[in-house]
Amino acid sequence: ADSAAIQRATLRQAQLTKPAGALGDLEALSVRLAGVFGTEFPAPQGGAVLVAAGDHGVAQEGVSAYPPEVTPAMVMNFLADTPAGPGGAAVNALARTVGARVYVMDAGVNAALPDHPRLHQCAVRRGTRNLRVEAAMTPDEAQALILAGAALARQAIEDGADLIVPGEMGIGNTTPAAVVTARLLGLDPAEVTGRGTGVDDARLAHKVAVVREALHRSPATGPLQVLAEFGGYEIAAMLGMMLETAAQRRVIVLDGFVEGSAALLGVTLAPALREFLFPAGHCAERGHAAQLAHLGLKPMFDLGLRLGEGSGGVLALPLLRAAAATLREMRTFEEAGVPV
Amino acid sequence: ADSAAIQRATLRQAQLTKPAGALGDLEALSVRLAGVFGTEFPAPQGGAVLVAAGDHGVAQEGVSAYPPEVTPAMVMNFLADTPAGPGGAAVNALARTVGARVYVMDAGVNAALPDHPRLHQCAVRRGTRNLRVEAAMTPDEAQALILAGAALARQAIEDGADLIVPGEMGIGNTTPAAVVTARLLGLDPAEVTGRGTGVDDARLAHKVAVVREALHRSPATGPLQVLAEFGGYEIAAMLGMMLETAAQRRVIVLDGFVEGSAALLGVTLAPALREFLFPAGHCAERGHAAQLAHLGLKPMFDLGLRLGEGSGGVLALPLLRAAAATLREMRTFEEAGVPV
Repeated sequence: ADSAAIQRATLRQAQLTKPAGALGDLEALSVRLAGVFGTEFPAPQGGAVLVAAGDHGVAQEGVSAYPPEVTPAMVMNFLADTPAGPGGAAVNALARTVGARVYVMDAGVNAALPDHPRLHQCAVRRGTRNLRVEAAMTPDEAQALILAGAALARQAIEDGADLIVPGEMGIGNTTPAAVVTARLLGLDPAEVTGRGTGVDDARLAHKVAVVREALHRSPATGPLQVLAEFGGYEIAAMLGMMLETAAQRRVIVLDGFVEGSAALLGVTLAPALREFLFPAGHCAERGHAAQLAHLGLKPMFDLGLRLGEGSGGVLALPLLRAAAATLREMRTFEEAGVPV
Repeated sequence: ADSAAIQRATLRQAQLTKPAGALGDLEALSVRLAGVFGTEFPAPQGGAVLVAAGDHGVAQEGVSAYPPEVTPAMVMNFLADTPAGPGGAAVNALARTVGARVYVMDAGVNAALPDHPRLHQCAVRRGTRNLRVEAAMTPDEAQALILAGAALARQAIEDGADLIVPGEMGIGNTTPAAVVTARLLGLDPAEVTGRGTGVDDARLAHKVAVVREALHRSPATGPLQVLAEFGGYEIAAMLGMMLETAAQRRVIVLDGFVEGSAALLGVTLAPALREFLFPAGHCAERGHAAQLAHLGLKPMFDLGLRLGEGSGGVLALPLLRAAAATLREMRTFEEAGVPV
């Protein structure tokens, strides 16, 4: 981030026509946006949600409340033509309300998906292997999806987006996210394994045991090894989206727990990525709070969301635009002739 | 609110393509919006912020960190022509980012304000009397401002708004808001008196003492008496905005502590008003939490805002639009053919 712009934005924010600090967290957000965009007058233009979908071998362990068939069905839902516009899922409906475009990627769904003009076909395999008993993917597969995610982010940026929301869909994917988070943060599986789409107590205990077995199986600690051993294709894709977005000095809006596991991989690979991360909301999935604590970043709201898809990230876009507008459009006490 | 629409919305929300409850508080918000608009497909169109400005005789007691001259100067700031559009204050900048229109009312500023095409001149007196020693306003004055607020809300609704944000500006106005809140909720002044624009410990202690003296001066408990004895012209105007908005079955977006004092008066007068109230964010001003606890309503975010002007309310508009869109634009599991 641009430290000179951050300094100028900090000075300007203190002179705007309001009591010092009265805009709360919007003030710090506006200064961080100044750092990303390299100006004390940040003017984000477009928002984009990049939804990567993938299936998971570990789903056969019964770690989810839903069957894997939901993943391809939801991809078709993201793409469907509806009276309201493209897509009938939450992320589509929410994105329309904030003028954000939704990009959909098959990162490795366990089904043959039909060609569709809005579907980016990037799968190298129909779902990962079962991370409980073997590496989820090969290093080459992981790299292919990182590159595919980066390419999709590049396209969204070329299309005009500068607020990028990586999102995901994949039955079972809170399990790889939990394993990745536990390993990178050195936490016990029970501290980072949650109910996902809503498993009961018995299934949650089983899920924790699966996460524990996976961690025992491999001592990998390097981020790319952790990704291949324990991750998912959509997690690899989101990592690529984040690396590319940061490299192009745009904003990464960080949604939920699965997205957070990609962010942890990202800051382990490239610590400066943190300056481009803007957490949207608290996520109800256990383990998300530990991710944010490690990143040292505060989310913008607490609406109890636990859907994924990038849906929470979409809700953060208006708040980021608002924060930027304070620096750009509010007058200073001097400009406005208001006595201090 | 329309209980049949609430029932239909509750059923529909449970069938949408997402795990049950995964949209968190957006789900309950969407159902409340269905109740307001009388349909399980709520489609809010326009947002409006109605900023009422007033001065306060009690300001001469030294209860604020800013001089009263700031009130008219900020009104001119709300109205100023700037390169970005009308108004150089926070509420203007934020409102532009969400497509909301800002209406500005002189509800009783202690200055002669020039005629301006965007200024609604509704003042009956240049500032209230000092509520520490006498009634802040006469019953007739209070009524005049209630009616003026109702008329402005009616105009905003005629202009196309159905998400109405009452807002305010007035140096010293957290003092009347604290007195009104203490009396209506039966709380000690220390529990509801905060730092406003930022007074230090000594001035805060003095402010608490002023609130206590006012409460001892008059035993009034009826809402209109409480308003006249302890309120402010902008609080009366916001009460009128809220009554009219509820009567027209539109959404009242509830911003901060001063707005909250008007809402307490509103639900005391007309308990059904509560169904139309949607608190925006937690406000950092002491006493706001007690207001929300009394109303039994949960705000949407906690950004540490304490500016007033309706600025926090503006930030809630995209979240309300998003909540409504889930009911309107998401498909059900059956519609999407997603296996459950």
